[in-house]
Amino acid sequence: MIEPRLVVERLRRTTDTVIGEADLLERLASGRPLRIKYGVDCTAPDLHLGHAVNLWLMRQLQDLGHQVVFLLGDLTTRVGDPTGRTETRPVLTPAQIEENARSFLDQVSIVLRTDLEVLEVRRNSEWYDGMPVAELLGLFGQVTHAQLMARDMFRERVAAGREIAVHELVYPVLQGYDSFAMRSDLTIVGSDQLFNEQLGRHFQQRLGAPPQVVVTTTITPGLDGRAKQSKSLNNYVALTDTPRDKFGKLMSIPDSLVETYAHVYTELPLDTVAALGSAAAVGGPPARDAKLQLAAAVVTRYHGAGTARTELEAFNRTFSDGQQPAEMPEVSVARQAATVLELLRIVRPDDSRSELRRLVRQGAVAVDGQRVDDPDQVVALAADVLLRSGRRTWHRIRPA
Amino acid sequence: MIEPRLVVERLRRTTDTVIGEADLLERLASGRPLRIKYGVDCTAPDLHLGHAVNLWLMRQLQDLGHQVVFLLGDLTTRVGDPTGRTETRPVLTPAQIEENARSFLDQVSIVLRTDLEVLEVRRNSEWYDGMPVAELLGLFGQVTHAQLMARDMFRERVAAGREIAVHELVYPVLQGYDSFAMRSDLTIVGSDQLFNEQLGRHFQQRLGAPPQVVVTTTITPGLDGRAKQSKSLNNYVALTDTPRDKFGKLMSIPDSLVETYAHVYTELPLDTVAALGSAAAVGGPPARDAKLQLAAAVVTRYHGAGTARTELEAFNRTFSDGQQPAEMPEVSVARQAATVLELLRIVRPDDSRSELRRLVRQGAVAVDGQRVDDPDQVVALAADVLLRSGRRTWHRIRPA
Repeated sequence: MIEPRLVVERLRRTTDTVIGEADLLERLASGRPLRIKYGVDCTAPDLHLGHAVNLWLMRQLQDLGHQVVFLLGDLTTRVGDPTGRTETRPVLTPAQIEENARSFLDQVSIVLRTDLEVLEVRRNSEWYDGMPVAELLGLFGQVTHAQLMARDMFRERVAAGREIAVHELVYPVLQGYDSFAMRSDLTIVGSDQLFNEQLGRHFQQRLGAPPQVVVTTTITPGLDGRAKQSKSLNNYVALTDTPRDKFGKLMSIPDSLVETYAHVYTELPLDTVAALGSAAAVGGPPARDAKLQLAAAVVTRYHGAGTARTELEAFNRTFSDGQQPAEMPEVSVARQAATVLELLRIVRPDDSRSELRRLVRQGAVAVDGQRVDDPDQVVALAADVLLRSGRRTWHRIRPA
Repeated sequence: MIEPRLVVERLRRTTDTVIGEADLLERLASGRPLRIKYGVDCTAPDLHLGHAVNLWLMRQLQDLGHQVVFLLGDLTTRVGDPTGRTETRPVLTPAQIEENARSFLDQVSIVLRTDLEVLEVRRNSEWYDGMPVAELLGLFGQVTHAQLMARDMFRERVAAGREIAVHELVYPVLQGYDSFAMRSDLTIVGSDQLFNEQLGRHFQQRLGAPPQVVVTTTITPGLDGRAKQSKSLNNYVALTDTPRDKFGKLMSIPDSLVETYAHVYTELPLDTVAALGSAAAVGGPPARDAKLQLAAAVVTRYHGAGTARTELEAFNRTFSDGQQPAEMPEVSVARQAATVLELLRIVRPDDSRSELRRLVRQGAVAVDGQRVDDPDQVVALAADVLLRSGRRTWHRIRPA
């Protein structure tokens, strides 16, 4: 058996807080397989590298013989988790829930081992469907209004004058009771779930069971540097992304994120992580090389070293020096000259004038490698002109 | 059929607000027997004249063929109605709930007719015991946190830093859904129940049923003039009080309450009520006579005119002119003189010195009809002395 303290040390690379660390050490020392609660609601999943931070921790524990209990919150999905939602979310049909659950399991299996000994699949409808209303109300009696309202998200909604439906208000109670019902020893969650999982400890203690250990992981910023990775912002690397997409998306992050990403999304040694951070701070080619190493490490983790090598080569081929691709679409323009804005209108007909002006303002437009500051700048069209608009969109403007 | 408008007029004597009056007129006009929700929780009941105001309104409607649905909130009693409670109340056992329910029905039958055609008895466990948790949560989804927190009592608790358990918070939702489940047309409640019953209308509308009419009655002050009639203050006339106790308690009210009591607790014509009010305002013997008439009218309502006459005579015999009773206990004291406090110690051996001093301070002690201000005042015991302590406690102190 691995020394419990070593196990906790290994987890520490990506954990934020551990509530009940002494319990964790003691339970690891007992030699008994721990039951690790991995609770999800059954809305349409698109797991990304951020989610996978927790999954990899669970995977480490699976490799030591501990058991992940993958809890599909099918009942609670019918209720709707308000976490991080400013608005009440729509209710799903049972068929949608089942479909989402299947998709969830598929995605989870990219990281987790799925042999029955280390992965048990449960649904919280198992204990809620047969629970008498009086018993549920008894659970409600174990929690106060003030406890629930202590939750940041509820307070924020109230402060903003937004509504909280009562089923949302009681959601944490249900999620908390789940921990008791499934005999959770440990749960590894994003820090936004800390409140709900502490209610889990509360219920276990109230109902005479040992309280689960709660490990939280820090939430990593999105590809664009924003705090939240979200579908609507499309700013994350999904586990189901192709190796090429993973590689390309990681090459697009701001230099300032390289070290963080290498720290939480790879298993590169920590001194390598630090070196990548320093290189990224320099900018230019060193930062670019650091990103290539980061992208290769992530692709290696999910798809193996061979695929990572292939993608690295493909990327270098496409975005050769100066990041100008070897091949790009050509557009013929039968004029002597045109403003940058006019050229942009031709190559990006779907964008509005104001969007195109904004692109210029953001410094995302270049003509023959020179950044353009003024959308009305006139460009002579005597010979080929290379027009870059956005990070990776290139056009060759050819005199007609 | 009685003209619907006349029915509503008759109710108006003791109603405060009618929510949905147009619906009420229309439903009365339909000729169909209305279902009148009379919901109670099953804590130990001690129904008093205040409760009976609503019961008499229901009785009027029963006499017109409408049906009272007496709803025992056995499920919700297990939850605990927080109305008017500053603290979370203890949970009752099923056996206690059943015993209380029986006692409730006994007391209610003092006013209501109990033939099956006009009295149906239901329990809300009928619909809650078999309700799946998901369905209950669906109901919760129809109500917002802000709606619940709009309730005065919850706001007051929060302002006072007192806890609201979550089962208490959702109590109004359960009480509201009851109205839908039992197909309530009308409910007659104290104004403190208005919030919960409006949630009933909310649910009926949300679930596609016609919303119940809500009639509220004003809450009448207690015998001591305090706003609330409560067991701990022992300041009400219970329906199960003997005729003698009813009579005596009503004689003890402040003059200022005579008109209100006559208005809401009797069927005396309104001009008589006004005359009693004027007489009470005069004070002295006219006020006393007004109270006698009030007491007799209440006893008549519950026990018939014969009993009322008997009690009136008994009261007059006991508390003859000056309210000094014809007969009183005699105590022999073998001393020449004693202080008032010493005499009080002899006749009220169970009261502490400080309680007795307080009695004097309150002006409740008199010697030979003269109010005593100083507990240390010396009283000569040469002949009989009449000692009054409290409103109706008299002793004859006799030289030994």
